[in-house]
Amino acid sequence: MDWNSAFATQMNRVKASEIRERAKTIDLSAVIQLGGGLPDRAILPHPLVQSVCDTILKTDGEAALQYAPSEGYGPLREWLAAYVTKTEFPCSPDNILITNGSQQALDLIGRVFLDVGDQVVLDAPTFIGAIRAFDLTGADYADIGSDFNQPNEDSLKNSSLGYFQADFSNPGGTCYSEKERTLLSDLVNRYSLPIIEDACYTPLRYEGEPLPSIQAINVAQNGGIDNSLVFRTGTFSKTIAPSLRVGWIIGPKEAIRKITLVKQACDLSTGKLAQMIAHSIASQHFDSQCEKAVATYKPRCAAMLKALREHMPDGVSWTKPEGGFYIWLTLPDLIDSKDLANRSLTEAQVSIISGHAFFPGDGGAKYARLSFSLEPEEKGTEAIKRLSALIRSM
Amino acid sequence: MDWNSAFATQMNRVKASEIRERAKTIDLSAVIQLGGGLPDRAILPHPLVQSVCDTILKTDGEAALQYAPSEGYGPLREWLAAYVTKTEFPCSPDNILITNGSQQALDLIGRVFLDVGDQVVLDAPTFIGAIRAFDLTGADYADIGSDFNQPNEDSLKNSSLGYFQADFSNPGGTCYSEKERTLLSDLVNRYSLPIIEDACYTPLRYEGEPLPSIQAINVAQNGGIDNSLVFRTGTFSKTIAPSLRVGWIIGPKEAIRKITLVKQACDLSTGKLAQMIAHSIASQHFDSQCEKAVATYKPRCAAMLKALREHMPDGVSWTKPEGGFYIWLTLPDLIDSKDLANRSLTEAQVSIISGHAFFPGDGGAKYARLSFSLEPEEKGTEAIKRLSALIRSM
Repeated sequence: MDWNSAFATQMNRVKASEIRERAKTIDLSAVIQLGGGLPDRAILPHPLVQSVCDTILKTDGEAALQYAPSEGYGPLREWLAAYVTKTEFPCSPDNILITNGSQQALDLIGRVFLDVGDQVVLDAPTFIGAIRAFDLTGADYADIGSDFNQPNEDSLKNSSLGYFQADFSNPGGTCYSEKERTLLSDLVNRYSLPIIEDACYTPLRYEGEPLPSIQAINVAQNGGIDNSLVFRTGTFSKTIAPSLRVGWIIGPKEAIRKITLVKQACDLSTGKLAQMIAHSIASQHFDSQCEKAVATYKPRCAAMLKALREHMPDGVSWTKPEGGFYIWLTLPDLIDSKDLANRSLTEAQVSIISGHAFFPGDGGAKYARLSFSLEPEEKGTEAIKRLSALIRSM
Repeated sequence: MDWNSAFATQMNRVKASEIRERAKTIDLSAVIQLGGGLPDRAILPHPLVQSVCDTILKTDGEAALQYAPSEGYGPLREWLAAYVTKTEFPCSPDNILITNGSQQALDLIGRVFLDVGDQVVLDAPTFIGAIRAFDLTGADYADIGSDFNQPNEDSLKNSSLGYFQADFSNPGGTCYSEKERTLLSDLVNRYSLPIIEDACYTPLRYEGEPLPSIQAINVAQNGGIDNSLVFRTGTFSKTIAPSLRVGWIIGPKEAIRKITLVKQACDLSTGKLAQMIAHSIASQHFDSQCEKAVATYKPRCAAMLKALREHMPDGVSWTKPEGGFYIWLTLPDLIDSKDLANRSLTEAQVSIISGHAFFPGDGGAKYARLSFSLEPEEKGTEAIKRLSALIRSM
């Protein structure tokens, strides 16, 4: 059987990551990991999950093992709605769909809005998982342009969906200013363009003051969430545990209802036991989980920025994130980032990700992403020393 | 915002189930449930899940809360591969992808093989969840015809994918004979047509001898699973617990690899803690879980068949399942099954599903599905008495 000829057309785009494939041939135990976006093992609350899980199974065991509603476990949707209402704007459980992590949120929204050949407007470099999800629908891409005062109007006019990250973007590590958020919300209204605001890293702020979400601005402009055009996606993967696979979409009720029916056709529902665990931990310990994560990652971010300042040769620049997991390197013109990522892994035993992955088309040759989430300060510093020496030698 | 105009074209097909919507307006506590396909709460092993979960979190807590590989938790794939190897044919972990229940298995395979307008060949009536999943790709449907000796050749020739249930079909409650399985496997080979064999209910046999799967026949015909055209889907939802959302696809390695990449773009991976729980229970208790399920459902099936014989008026006929959850009623011409399902719920407080749902196009007006999984024998018998009286009155 020639499988490639049997697969649907857009499956041609679906390829294994070169980085991942290459990493499989390396003894990773010796490698300093600045590649992936994993949370640190130390912040995973396994004793808490254990005690919460025990209580759930003792007091509500049969219900915990049965099917969940497709829209999600009721008390978890209620908790999220109350949290948004308390901190931002009036929100009801009908505005919330629980998903398998925020990756599924991107996939579901993509499926609901994108026919083959439809265009997604985004702000490259952007999250590789979003590109991969939209690729499955056969979408095309356009860039909004870096100045929201003078955006690429055609890219907005001809798009069926937008995808943006306002806080601590992956891979850029940057935030939109309040002015940029307002401009973006204005543009969304002008073009009646539904957009995703991926708020995956929002709780992980290490410096500066929180800014209003694009969604909150859009909700205020349009007189309520049900008239808004913004779908905000979130997850407990960075604040409780990735293995629960509990994420969500917050958006206008009518569209959430349609996305829920698509979720039902995709996998019926997100696991109920996992949702009950997430609800129990979030409702009692969300703030302390966030504090623990911030206490872990903030010094790692600071140490890596310090090491970059001390060791990187001239001609290399980088972003100074106020939160999240990532620093984005800009390389001198003579260095190709695929070549650098390759040699960094094999010669310096440091995994980093070449910038290519974060652009839907060409681009990325002069960029690389460094993650500071997984390695303690001294290892992160050592990795930057080695990487700096390698760049110098190139 | 006019959301309907913003949604992708095939979203027009995605509609809420009338039955579910109507059921929301009824006090379900008074209703005898022959509608859904839920496992009985008595067979859900919550003390076992509790003890297994406790051990996992104590001994391997950090790993249990981290991301899982997209292809699934290694030891679970190994266990499944060994089980297939022991009972059927040589199978490696590379032939297995873990999914969020078998519903996601259907969605992923549909996405990988179906472009908009591609055709799926199936044997109607068929599983509503399969139709819903394939609908999302914009697929069309054709029926294979009831006699596999003289199938609808055009439907096979023009299809990109097939979908079949060999054991205790949902909704039919019927099995293919060994001869039919072989004929179907021959047809698949003749037309180089990838098919799904949905084996969701296979472990739940109450009468008769197990028959070889279509996949096992096709593997033998083609000299190994990697040359086979059959993707078999399965789940622990009927034998351990639906809330774990752990299902799988068994198929040729090269295609499994592509489907895994699509899974990665859809939701990264299935929850690791849930997979570890499923692995621990399956590897120690799979046979006893199946025995417990059979001991629960076998007398319910027998009692409902007895009640049908004793109470149903002439002109109504039904299938005699050897396993699974469902009995398929054929109604007299004068009775419309939507009307019957409606009146059964409101007048007799018995929920059943009209046959319409189980055909991709028109059809189903003279059929209804009864599930015997959820109610104890005396309630199932009472439901059939009421339903019989209603049909008599109509």
